[in-house]
Amino acid sequence: MPRIHRDVETERRLDRAMQVFWARGYYDTSIETLRARTGLHRAAIYGRFGSKRKLFETLLGRYRATYIARWFAPLEAPDAAFAELEAFFRQFRDLPPPAARLGCLMCLTSSEVAPHVPSVERIVSRYLDDLRFLIRAACVNARDRGEIRAATDPDLVADYSVGAVLGLWAVVRSPMPRDAIARYLNGVLRSLGSLRPVGGGDVRSL
Amino acid sequence: MPRIHRDVETERRLDRAMQVFWARGYYDTSIETLRARTGLHRAAIYGRFGSKRKLFETLLGRYRATYIARWFAPLEAPDAAFAELEAFFRQFRDLPPPAARLGCLMCLTSSEVAPHVPSVERIVSRYLDDLRFLIRAACVNARDRGEIRAATDPDLVADYSVGAVLGLWAVVRSPMPRDAIARYLNGVLRSLGSLRPVGGGDVRSL
Repeated sequence: MPRIHRDVETERRLDRAMQVFWARGYYDTSIETLRARTGLHRAAIYGRFGSKRKLFETLLGRYRATYIARWFAPLEAPDAAFAELEAFFRQFRDLPPPAARLGCLMCLTSSEVAPHVPSVERIVSRYLDDLRFLIRAACVNARDRGEIRAATDPDLVADYSVGAVLGLWAVVRSPMPRDAIARYLNGVLRSLGSLRPVGGGDVRSL
Repeated sequence: MPRIHRDVETERRLDRAMQVFWARGYYDTSIETLRARTGLHRAAIYGRFGSKRKLFETLLGRYRATYIARWFAPLEAPDAAFAELEAFFRQFRDLPPPAARLGCLMCLTSSEVAPHVPSVERIVSRYLDDLRFLIRAACVNARDRGEIRAATDPDLVADYSVGAVLGLWAVVRSPMPRDAIARYLNGVLRSLGSLRPVGGGDVRSL
């Protein structure tokens, strides 16, 4: 096979492997499942990556660089402020498949694998730090522009928002009814909306 | 061995098995791990429960009847209203071990197992329904007593609160720093506090 075809085929297999881990989690995905679902053989996994764990870590990096990068886009915009923070959360209203059902691979990994595997914990920590950094920066910009009250504590908003993100992904993957998830998201958006200056329009709490 | 000793020993082994699943999750806990950590042999697991999955479901019932029942206590109080809803959430400030590190076995299971195993999904759904029912009832009581605004939507508060519970347990099990978790909890408590009537004292949003 010409090299270009081999590479395309490998990329496709790695993408499929990411989807398998995303659906089933790390521990329920055996080397045999990976072979059956992706065509990646044990020899290829061990030869190229060294172990199932290292393949998984590579795929977490791939997930971060594709799905998470696209999802971070509103917050990555230059001078992102309050509108971008709201736009970021509003993405939960209309998630594309497979996220709409499977939630977030990184957040699943945070509960499933990070408590036991330090190298995976570092990857999850870095993701949580990035998310917090972007939200905090948007909050500081929003405060500087008077879009939210001057007394707003950006650290509280950042940690509240990161917690809400973990909560939203947890409910998306849970058996909660879809309309209940929409109400949870509305509650989060109203909490954030309550940061607006009191004179600046409708203040709706929950 | 007299029967009473056998029963005490079995109870102790089942408790230890629950702790092993709580720490490692369902899929990373093998029959061999259970034997090594609890003394429950394969023959005992299959003979008494039929399968690892059925043992796990029995232990989820045990977890519901012990840890979750104690944690639900404020909301189970007769005429529980707003103070009890706040007291329920304030429990996250000072969680006992092992919950302080491992989070909640039921919420871990919601992400890890419920998407693939219908019988487990039903157990998780029943738990989420119970939690929602208790919170909604406290919210209706609080509204009837004028502790929170008359326009409060109990369904929105209930779904927001259930989402926040899943979020709080997710952050407890995540690598997030402990002070960040405390700030997330403060944000949730402030959101709930914003339900108080505007004339009724300090309204603090996030």
